[in-house]
Amino acid sequence: MQRYFLEKELAENQLQEIVITGEQHHHMNRVMRMKEATQVYLVFPSGRSIIAEIITINQEQVSLKWIADEVAEKELPIQVTIASGLPKQDKLEFVVQKITELGAAAFIPFQGHFSITKWDHKKATKKIERLQKIALEAAEQSHRRKVPTIYPLATSIEEIAQQAADYDYCLVAYEESAKENEQAVFAKVLQQVKPGEKILVVFGPEGGLAPKEIEQLETAGFLLCGLGPRILRTETAPLYVLSAISYVTELKQ
Amino acid sequence: MQRYFLEKELAENQLQEIVITGEQHHHMNRVMRMKEATQVYLVFPSGRSIIAEIITINQEQVSLKWIADEVAEKELPIQVTIASGLPKQDKLEFVVQKITELGAAAFIPFQGHFSITKWDHKKATKKIERLQKIALEAAEQSHRRKVPTIYPLATSIEEIAQQAADYDYCLVAYEESAKENEQAVFAKVLQQVKPGEKILVVFGPEGGLAPKEIEQLETAGFLLCGLGPRILRTETAPLYVLSAISYVTELKQ
Repeated sequence: MQRYFLEKELAENQLQEIVITGEQHHHMNRVMRMKEATQVYLVFPSGRSIIAEIITINQEQVSLKWIADEVAEKELPIQVTIASGLPKQDKLEFVVQKITELGAAAFIPFQGHFSITKWDHKKATKKIERLQKIALEAAEQSHRRKVPTIYPLATSIEEIAQQAADYDYCLVAYEESAKENEQAVFAKVLQQVKPGEKILVVFGPEGGLAPKEIEQLETAGFLLCGLGPRILRTETAPLYVLSAISYVTELKQ
Repeated sequence: MQRYFLEKELAENQLQEIVITGEQHHHMNRVMRMKEATQVYLVFPSGRSIIAEIITINQEQVSLKWIADEVAEKELPIQVTIASGLPKQDKLEFVVQKITELGAAAFIPFQGHFSITKWDHKKATKKIERLQKIALEAAEQSHRRKVPTIYPLATSIEEIAQQAADYDYCLVAYEESAKENEQAVFAKVLQQVKPGEKILVVFGPEGGLAPKEIEQLETAGFLLCGLGPRILRTETAPLYVLSAISYVTELKQ
């Protein structure tokens, strides 16, 4: 069943005739060729998700009515923000798609000291819009109730370090920690974290984080952690973190 | 430090002059432009890994000597085999690269009932060779001691079902289980599994597994499991499984 994220909240008495135009109407009408009585999920900005049925559909608009609320919980109980140093090629699009599937709450790209890719102001705006679109599509496909927030480019690690106070836990996945066989920090945090709390996890670009960047993060209270004995690529490590968090918090232990 | 997988085991007394020619020599000499005294990891088929130093390097060959054994454990304590229904495009290459980084022991591609992609005999041979190369490169890059085995294409789910007896645990990641909020089976298996044991996990292609395929697997003793409340793409689900297994077995709890 298709899922659509709506931009406006609706009052209870508006749920008997929900009118949709624009891109989502186009998708239902032309791409999916939906007919009367087809059911879809509609998700509101609050995270409320309903099953709605098409009453009428024509070239201009589609009207739907509320059938039932979706009850199953879809969101990670912990709010995880992933910060990635700009990697090469289109890896960032991959990362955003996958972390959305795996339940991330937000994503912050940053210009790392060793990032080979550079974004100028104009490019950054376009790139962020593209990442927002990818997050929206992945959220629809993976049946989430929230689209992850894609933040503007942080131009240095300092901007990330300054945000430490906004989170309950701040971690850095650090290759040198993995090499030194550090294996306690991440698991310890996952044992302490409570539903509703916020975690920020920072990942360097391909070349890793510079010693000075690590120092800035440590000074701001970030904990360095290893993610097992193998060296994970920059685009793989965030998936490891989110998978482990889902396993610990969403599957019955 | 670069890592190379050698095809032959060497006796202890041969470790003072290890001669390498062919592609690996080419890589050291022409691609990496290595010089005398450069150190590399050499990994033997047994999984023994040593640090070796270049004594001489020229246009024909490179000679190295043993410096030390690598002591850190790099391999997952549990042997995980991933079986994937042929997905679209080049997603299989992605899956093989990522599951290698995440520690998989082996990979079996299979022709699923809903696989849109088909491999004929000739194509299958080439594809498997390509996947073996990707696994080798990812094993080098992620600093593993074993290159995952890439098995030939299984032409139906039946061939997978028949292998059940080779494994201690056989699981199927099933979208319908996820939708029904099944969340106990995978965690239960991870709590029971012991070091050295073998797990096989089956993933359908984009269209999922057909009811008949599920039936065949269940008859063969496979357990159906969900992987959390979000719908993961066919190429994401194996990464979730391996990340969770690494978290449970390799990080300190």
